[in-house]
Amino acid sequence: MASAPTLAIIGGGQLARMMAQPAIALGLPLRLLAEAEGVSAAQVIPDQLVGDYRDLGTLRTATSDCAVVTFDHEHVPTEHLAALAADGVAVRPGPDALVYAQDKGLMRERLGELGAPCPRNAVVATPDEVEAFGLPCVLKITRGGYDGRGVWVVRSVADVAEPFAAAEAAGHGDGAVRVLAEELVDFRRELSAIVARSPSGQAAAYPVVQTTQRDGICHEVIAPAPDLAPELGAQAQALALRIAGELGVTGILAVELFETVDEQGRPALLVNELAMRPHNTGHWTQDGAETSQFENHLRAVMDLPLGAPTPRAPWTVMVNILGGSAGGDVGSLYDGLPHALARDPRLRVHLYGKDLRPGRKVGHVNVYGDDLDDLLERARHAAAWFAGDLGDESE
Amino acid sequence: MASAPTLAIIGGGQLARMMAQPAIALGLPLRLLAEAEGVSAAQVIPDQLVGDYRDLGTLRTATSDCAVVTFDHEHVPTEHLAALAADGVAVRPGPDALVYAQDKGLMRERLGELGAPCPRNAVVATPDEVEAFGLPCVLKITRGGYDGRGVWVVRSVADVAEPFAAAEAAGHGDGAVRVLAEELVDFRRELSAIVARSPSGQAAAYPVVQTTQRDGICHEVIAPAPDLAPELGAQAQALALRIAGELGVTGILAVELFETVDEQGRPALLVNELAMRPHNTGHWTQDGAETSQFENHLRAVMDLPLGAPTPRAPWTVMVNILGGSAGGDVGSLYDGLPHALARDPRLRVHLYGKDLRPGRKVGHVNVYGDDLDDLLERARHAAAWFAGDLGDESE
Repeated sequence: MASAPTLAIIGGGQLARMMAQPAIALGLPLRLLAEAEGVSAAQVIPDQLVGDYRDLGTLRTATSDCAVVTFDHEHVPTEHLAALAADGVAVRPGPDALVYAQDKGLMRERLGELGAPCPRNAVVATPDEVEAFGLPCVLKITRGGYDGRGVWVVRSVADVAEPFAAAEAAGHGDGAVRVLAEELVDFRRELSAIVARSPSGQAAAYPVVQTTQRDGICHEVIAPAPDLAPELGAQAQALALRIAGELGVTGILAVELFETVDEQGRPALLVNELAMRPHNTGHWTQDGAETSQFENHLRAVMDLPLGAPTPRAPWTVMVNILGGSAGGDVGSLYDGLPHALARDPRLRVHLYGKDLRPGRKVGHVNVYGDDLDDLLERARHAAAWFAGDLGDESE
Repeated sequence: MASAPTLAIIGGGQLARMMAQPAIALGLPLRLLAEAEGVSAAQVIPDQLVGDYRDLGTLRTATSDCAVVTFDHEHVPTEHLAALAADGVAVRPGPDALVYAQDKGLMRERLGELGAPCPRNAVVATPDEVEAFGLPCVLKITRGGYDGRGVWVVRSVADVAEPFAAAEAAGHGDGAVRVLAEELVDFRRELSAIVARSPSGQAAAYPVVQTTQRDGICHEVIAPAPDLAPELGAQAQALALRIAGELGVTGILAVELFETVDEQGRPALLVNELAMRPHNTGHWTQDGAETSQFENHLRAVMDLPLGAPTPRAPWTVMVNILGGSAGGDVGSLYDGLPHALARDPRLRVHLYGKDLRPGRKVGHVNVYGDDLDDLLERARHAAAWFAGDLGDESE
C-alpha cells in the first residue's frame, strides 16, 4: 500500500510542537531535526534526530527520504536550503522566498520594489550615515534578531555603537549582517495579517488581528482587530496575499503591520516585519478558527487544499505566558493548571514543555466568545497566574 | 524545578493516539505501552515500550515512575490492575470500576442492583437455559468482545453452539468467560451518554447523541440526538452520572443506550453497554465541543478540573471511515485528502495511521454547523470517499 509522504521539520521549538497536533489528525508522518535532546517538539515527535541546522550534512541526514522540509525558525543558512532543493527535497518555503524573512535589508529592498508601504528605511554602514538618516530612529541588524533582540531605538549618535558591534559579531566580521535604519513610526497600534499559500497558488487569509507587544515580545492578540475599518482590513489581507504571491511563499506568511495615519489624516498601513512560518499572532486560530494556522501550514507545504480560515466565535483572545519575574523557583507550569482550569472551564491552555526562565515564551492561553471585556479579563488572569505574576495577596 | 507527572497509557490504538493531541497542549508527558512497533499511537508518542499488556512484569516496567496509568482498551487483566494499584500507581479507571466494563455479566448484575434500566438478561450455562430464557434472544460472551464480535442474535437452539464454543475458547476452558442472554430489544434508535468523572468526584456530562451501527460497528453519530425529548436526555445524562459515581469511574464513561417505548407507550431508556475510556460515540467532541472527550479523559485521570462539555455548534456529525470492500489495493488514506479537503474546506479529518483493511476503523470525519442535512451529506460523502466506496462513475 502506498503510504503518506514524510515531512521534515527543522527546529524543535513550540511551533514544531504545535504542528504535531494537526499532523496526528492528517495522518502525516513527521521527522524532526532538534537542536538538543528533550526540547519542546522533541517531547512529542518520535522520529527525531539531534543536530546542528547550520551543518549541511546534518540537514541532508534529517531530510533523507522526506518529500518536503519546513521550518520552526528562519535561521537555516540560505545556501544550505538551496543545496537541499538541488538534492530534490521540496523546501517550503523555498530559499528564494525565505531569504526575505531572514534578511531585513533584502526584505525592505524587495518590498520597496513591490510598492508595499514601509517605514522610511536605509542600510547604514557608519554612524555618520545614521546621523544623515535622521535621529531618533530604529536600528536593526539585518539577520539573526528575534523577539525584540537585534532591535534598538536610538536617540543620539552615542547609542549607535552597540548595534554596529552586534552586526559585526552576528556576521562574524564578514559583513553578511548589516545595520538597517528605519524611521520611528508613530503608530496607533500593531496589526498582523496572516495568510497561507500552497505551491499550486491556492491561498487563504485569516482575519486581521490586533497585537500588543511588551518589551519587543508579542504579548496579547485580539481576533479580529477591534474597530478596524473594513477597507483597511481588506487592504491588509490583500497586501499579505500579494506579498505571498510575489515572493513565492509556501506555508504561512505573517505580515506584521503598523496602523498609522497618512498626511491627510486617513488610516494607513506600514509593513513592520515578515515571518514565513506559523506566527505567535496566529496562535488564536488553534481554538478560534475553523482551521488552525498550524494545520494550514502543514496543508500548504504538502500542497494539500487549504482549510477554512473562518473565525468560530465573534472574538478570540490570546495571551502569552512568559516566565515571570519571580525567578527560577516558581515550580512547574503544570502546577498552575488546577487553579487556572477550575476558575475557567472554557480556558484553552497551550504549554510548550519548557522551563520557566524569566521573559521566555513558555505557553499561551486562548479564550473565545461574545464578550471581549470578559475574554480579556479571563485570558490575562490565566496568563499572569501561570507566569507567577499575580503576587501573594497577603503581602 | 518540579516537572509534570507522567501518564502511562496501555494500548497503542487510535484512542491513545488521539489522547496525544491534548497532552501536547496540557504539557503532560505520556508513556505508551504498545502491542507492536509502529501501531497507531506509537507513531506519535516518543516515550514508548513494546510489550504484552497481559504480562504483569511488562506492565510494571511500562508504568515505572508514572504517577497514573490509563487505557486505550479494556483488556488488561483485572488482577494485574490490582497489582499495579498495590504498587502505588494510580490506576484510572481502577480495577473495581473497570471490571464492569470488562465483564458484561458482572455489569448486568451490578446495574440491576442499582436499579438502572436494562434489557431482561441472564447468564446461561447450557442450551436448555437459553431455551428457557426465550428465543429469539441475543447471546454475548461476557469478556473479550468488541465492535460486534462476541455478540450473536440467535433464533433457534441450533444457533447457540457457536456462542458457547466462543466463550469456552475465550476463557481457555477455565470458565472465566460465560454466556449472557439478553432480550432482543425492539428499539427506536441507539443513543450514547458520555460523562467524565475525576477522582475528586467532579463530573461533566456531554449532550446525549444518536448513534447508528452498521454490522455491529459504530458508523455515524449526530450530536445532539435529533428530536430527543428534553426530559429523556436529562434522564440519560443523570443515569450516566449516577453509574459513574456508583461504580467509582475515573475518566470517560460512555453509556450506550437503547431508546424504546415502555408498556404505556412512553419513551424509555435501556442500558446496552458501558465503556470506560474515550468512546467512538464521543469523537464528535474533538471539533464540536469546547473540550474534547480526549482532553477531559486526561484531565479526569490526572485529577485536574474538567473542561466545559458544551457544544460549539448547533449540530456536529461524525462518520467513521472503515476499510472498504474494495480490498487491499486501495492506496493510502493520505491519498484521499486532496479531493476530500478541496471539496469541503470545513471538513475535519482524523486519520489513525492504520492500513486500510476491510471493515477496520481507520479514521473518522467531523463536520459542524447549522444545517443537519447538509452536514450529513458532507460527512457521508467524505467517509465513503476515503473508504473507496464511492465507486467509479464510469462503471
